[in-house]
Amino acid sequence: MAEKPKKPQKLRARLPRGLEDRGPAAIAATRQMVEKIRDVYERYGFEPVETPAMEYTDALGKFLPDQDRPNEGVFSFQDDDEQWISLRYDLTAPLARYVAENFDSLPKPYRSYRAGYVYRNEKPGPGRFRQFMQFDADTVGSASPAADAEMCMMAADTMEALGIPRGSYVVKVNNRKVLDGVLEAIGLGGEDNAGRRLTVLRAIDKLDKFSADEVRKLLGPGRWDGGEEGKGDFTKGANLSSADADVVLAVTAKRDDWKDAIAAADTYLSKSEVGQAGVSELEEIAKLLTASGYGPDRIKIDPSVVRGLEYYTGPVYEVELTLETKDEKGRPVRFGSVGGGGRYDGLVSRFRGEPVPATGFSIGVSRLQAALTMLGKLDTTPAFGPVVVTVFGGEIAGYQQMVAKLRNAGIRAELYLGNPKHSLGQQMKYADRRNSPCAIIQGSDEKANGKIQIKDLILGAGLTEIKDREEYLKRQTEAQYVVDEASLVDEVKKVLARHDVKWGS
Amino acid sequence: MAEKPKKPQKLRARLPRGLEDRGPAAIAATRQMVEKIRDVYERYGFEPVETPAMEYTDALGKFLPDQDRPNEGVFSFQDDDEQWISLRYDLTAPLARYVAENFDSLPKPYRSYRAGYVYRNEKPGPGRFRQFMQFDADTVGSASPAADAEMCMMAADTMEALGIPRGSYVVKVNNRKVLDGVLEAIGLGGEDNAGRRLTVLRAIDKLDKFSADEVRKLLGPGRWDGGEEGKGDFTKGANLSSADADVVLAVTAKRDDWKDAIAAADTYLSKSEVGQAGVSELEEIAKLLTASGYGPDRIKIDPSVVRGLEYYTGPVYEVELTLETKDEKGRPVRFGSVGGGGRYDGLVSRFRGEPVPATGFSIGVSRLQAALTMLGKLDTTPAFGPVVVTVFGGEIAGYQQMVAKLRNAGIRAELYLGNPKHSLGQQMKYADRRNSPCAIIQGSDEKANGKIQIKDLILGAGLTEIKDREEYLKRQTEAQYVVDEASLVDEVKKVLARHDVKWGS
Repeated sequence: MAEKPKKPQKLRARLPRGLEDRGPAAIAATRQMVEKIRDVYERYGFEPVETPAMEYTDALGKFLPDQDRPNEGVFSFQDDDEQWISLRYDLTAPLARYVAENFDSLPKPYRSYRAGYVYRNEKPGPGRFRQFMQFDADTVGSASPAADAEMCMMAADTMEALGIPRGSYVVKVNNRKVLDGVLEAIGLGGEDNAGRRLTVLRAIDKLDKFSADEVRKLLGPGRWDGGEEGKGDFTKGANLSSADADVVLAVTAKRDDWKDAIAAADTYLSKSEVGQAGVSELEEIAKLLTASGYGPDRIKIDPSVVRGLEYYTGPVYEVELTLETKDEKGRPVRFGSVGGGGRYDGLVSRFRGEPVPATGFSIGVSRLQAALTMLGKLDTTPAFGPVVVTVFGGEIAGYQQMVAKLRNAGIRAELYLGNPKHSLGQQMKYADRRNSPCAIIQGSDEKANGKIQIKDLILGAGLTEIKDREEYLKRQTEAQYVVDEASLVDEVKKVLARHDVKWGS
Repeated sequence: MAEKPKKPQKLRARLPRGLEDRGPAAIAATRQMVEKIRDVYERYGFEPVETPAMEYTDALGKFLPDQDRPNEGVFSFQDDDEQWISLRYDLTAPLARYVAENFDSLPKPYRSYRAGYVYRNEKPGPGRFRQFMQFDADTVGSASPAADAEMCMMAADTMEALGIPRGSYVVKVNNRKVLDGVLEAIGLGGEDNAGRRLTVLRAIDKLDKFSADEVRKLLGPGRWDGGEEGKGDFTKGANLSSADADVVLAVTAKRDDWKDAIAAADTYLSKSEVGQAGVSELEEIAKLLTASGYGPDRIKIDPSVVRGLEYYTGPVYEVELTLETKDEKGRPVRFGSVGGGGRYDGLVSRFRGEPVPATGFSIGVSRLQAALTMLGKLDTTPAFGPVVVTVFGGEIAGYQQMVAKLRNAGIRAELYLGNPKHSLGQQMKYADRRNSPCAIIQGSDEKANGKIQIKDLILGAGLTEIKDREEYLKRQTEAQYVVDEASLVDEVKKVLARHDVKWGS
């Protein structure tokens, strides 16, 4: 037997892992969200500014110390002059670069916002992508806690603008200086204690998930994941004394009234200068929020908020969805954090060699969109497709003309561009798939008489449910009928009006 | 003398070359443009789909042949599984990958559109950036010239939707098969002639810039840049015989009536099969355009259109702005091509191993925006900034409250967040810089009496021009006045109404 001829090697069509393609519903949802966020930010007096997707790696602070290579977590390449360039990891570092570069020409304080994709060269997982959208706002050039308070109010307003009712989200505010004060108060200041400090902060960060007793184990000797010895993995603790753990838990306990939270922190941190500074900033923020009517139903003082990024220097805030939903297997899902931020007084200063205070807030648009979609808060009903003009025979210029007329009248319309030999049935199947409100049909007889058939696909879709023959025939007549070709536009408009088809944006 | 202490090394804030930051006016202009283009595309029945910024390099067709490295023109990095990933160079290759990957679930023909940034690792120049925006539309799964005709009509409608009047742009249509036919007719078929074919195509491409006589030199022995021997550089020609050059120039000559263009091509390419196929496709497109009322004032058949990209297989089209403007030095500037596209039947097929016809059109949004800005076709008047509430003394909660009231009433407003010790003059300077319509002032006396001052900054700006003292004082009273604090929102609304301040989108 002769060998089969080799097929030419086929390229495999595949998206690199950790990335996603986005269809009409997702794109429409993002547009809606971005417009709503934009509206709130503009009302707060913020103006748009956008930077490109790439920056010098050193400007992003992503060079590995003592190495001539960028951090592996960022996508990087060397430019032809050997300088390293990376895709932005967040929108904050590029903004800091922008402000530093254009410092003299910008009004100060400078309030700005931007939405954009950021890129992380990390192991992707469920819901964790390597490209996702953030929407950031930043105020550069104001050291006032009022700038931070404003961010928190804006975050709350944004959640409500996005349709999340009051009580279903919370903005939690803390101050890094309070946490620094706690660490100082329990004797963990200084270079030597960096490791233990981190262990304590990680334990505090768990207060959202675990009871105070479980967190106490993490502050002390350590904790077994399963809750008791031998079950699951063991997490080493910070080895604090019981008295020191008390201090940590007393300051970071959740309290309903912000005055109680402030009082506790004030008491335990009375000897820490940085702690006192933190307490007084927190208090000022709480007062401003109260004066503006933003109570604990929207914004809470919560000294257990840590926030991961190292560059925060003062107030930090986090927006959490408190709604629960169920996953496909019926297990409860808590959404948790959908945004956050804080004061980063060092980021612009790096470039300027002088202090430049700044505070910013970032919404994880992709993450929030996934949550809103799960909660049914986003309109994902597919829009109606275009009116489909079907074709018969070889000469399509006449059909093309009808399409042009409809389009000129502002009606979404298309010519059937599949194989022109396809049967009417095949063309109708296409129109259904496109979710078309109606189709136009013109056979040779109709053409000769200046007529067309209108097929109302929405009425037609209900026909199969009708059992009664008389009724069926009556309805069928209503769903498909002959009209003058000259009245094409008017007749199509009638169908659109009948079903309230609006395309809009 | 003691040495000066070393300053800590300062990071330089600089954008990598070939990239740009974008401010409020540019962002607003892009939004307007994208919305208008979107409207037209949706009217044509196209639906949005978006792919991420990066793809496997092989899927982009950007691997260097016989080398294990990507083309240098694309930004590339190796993933941790050693596969090469590149930033997209255009939006066409990613769309081809998307369609191939999701082939069975998509309606066919599949009409889709997308706007997005593309990245080119090329030497930047004036107006040439390494990141810029394109807006693409593609129809996959239709071999019909009607799909190409539709692209051309959509391109024309888009230009007019963007405010470019009929006559100030032209969509030029050609067919690669016509050019292939010309090359065949003059005996330049076959592998051996690839180099000379390219020289001929480059010469044809110059018909836009040079007279037919100058192009004849490029088709023949070559041409001196300055027009005569010894002047400027010499470009080697294709060394065609005079008779062959006649054929090239006869087919590619610009003709007002498409029937003349078709007739000429038909005559000269009567013996070329591919040429005849091209002529008949061109003719069918021309007929469809005519039937739909798109005459040569909008779309022209122009057999001199080449288009650079190698992957085009049939009809090609190009949108040109025919308007002229002057640069800063008063020299005339022609904008030229702002978009184009064509049929690329091979791109999806690479993945599928079966023929998949496709045609697409791409608008250079960034390029077109630069042109429209130069032509004054984009509204770049800066929007009014927020109402600024100025601050006095240490206690700002009351001022913050006013800001919250204004924002809750939908009015753009901000608290002055600069140094609270700044004088009223400094705060007013900031408000002017922000282009605020009015400022709110409340000193301690006013506060005690429940009053505020409204300063109408638009009226106030005209004051300096007034010479007459009485008149000045009268106007000054109109521009700054005391009202009840309780009527803050109403009084600000009066100012906004007085000057027709609308923020909108």
